[in-house]
Amino acid sequence: MADRSPTSRPGGRTARVRADVHGAVQSLLRDQSVAELTIAQIAERSGVHLGTLYRRWGSLDGILLDVVTERLSQSSPMPDTGTLGEDLREYARQAASDLAGPEGKLLLRTLVAVRLGNDEAGLPPALSRRFDELGELLDRAAARGENPPTVQEVFEVVIAPLVAGLLFDTQPQGPKAVDHLLDRLDRITGQG
Amino acid sequence: MADRSPTSRPGGRTARVRADVHGAVQSLLRDQSVAELTIAQIAERSGVHLGTLYRRWGSLDGILLDVVTERLSQSSPMPDTGTLGEDLREYARQAASDLAGPEGKLLLRTLVAVRLGNDEAGLPPALSRRFDELGELLDRAAARGENPPTVQEVFEVVIAPLVAGLLFDTQPQGPKAVDHLLDRLDRITGQG
Repeated sequence: MADRSPTSRPGGRTARVRADVHGAVQSLLRDQSVAELTIAQIAERSGVHLGTLYRRWGSLDGILLDVVTERLSQSSPMPDTGTLGEDLREYARQAASDLAGPEGKLLLRTLVAVRLGNDEAGLPPALSRRFDELGELLDRAAARGENPPTVQEVFEVVIAPLVAGLLFDTQPQGPKAVDHLLDRLDRITGQG
Repeated sequence: MADRSPTSRPGGRTARVRADVHGAVQSLLRDQSVAELTIAQIAERSGVHLGTLYRRWGSLDGILLDVVTERLSQSSPMPDTGTLGEDLREYARQAASDLAGPEGKLLLRTLVAVRLGNDEAGLPPALSRRFDELGELLDRAAARGENPPTVQEVFEVVIAPLVAGLLFDTQPQGPKAVDHLLDRLDRITGQG
């Protein structure tokens, strides 16, 4: 499929290119490991020019980060249980479980490459959107009359220790690891 | 210099090999960037066999992580000011400043490669030692009759948000960023 083919997929050319690239990566990863994947293979399989890939995603790591963030967002949608406490518990357990799994590790590896590599690029849109969704979860709680923490507080108190704990090997990982972090968040925001 | 040369540097052969490797990396990095560095160059410059390097450090990233941790430990020794509050403030500001600088970024990049790469190795000794030193700082405070947090609490509440904030681009970095984290730690441990 050519980069400029005039198909009518919704979202226009930009969304179409992204969908083609994501589809190509998913398809390639069914037959080979991430370590073997090259950006040239993605260009060939997707029909998107190599120059377009570099311009839009910066690097192979940039593409992989976009793909894995999208996959995690789809497989772990933001909870909407009706109460803040239950939403946060489900969100935190899912985040802990995702981070400790192979896709979470790929996310951290590619995020580090993109953010701390030569480009020092900003956060990719798919990951910014995830923070926006967390903000919406907290806004729903506020609209119900609950007293939610800020996105920044959830990030610092719950997510950051999970991420850093994985890197520095300082604590047990997985869904159970979040309970004392959620208790701490409760105490900080005065809901405990 | 041969790997097995019977020199009498203190610490025995293991320490001597490590010193030779660290010296070789420092010397190579005066003339070229980290991105250009190869493990073969380190073998040649240090006189340590390539097989020994792989056996002991696992990879080029493993060597770089050891070297950069050692350098940061030496340039940012643990404070010992006589009070817990001042020690923690100085430690946190230094950690924030180190992490946001080029050596901190190299530390995170190599740590991710070592911890989340194919080997999934444990924490290197130089980094474990850093946590031990933080424990000693907290023990000194306890011995003075102060009420220190645990190493795990300092890590989760202060260090983790700095590390994760750098990766996820969520907050201003640098020494000033630590004040609200230290206040939070105070509140958690009931010293505020």
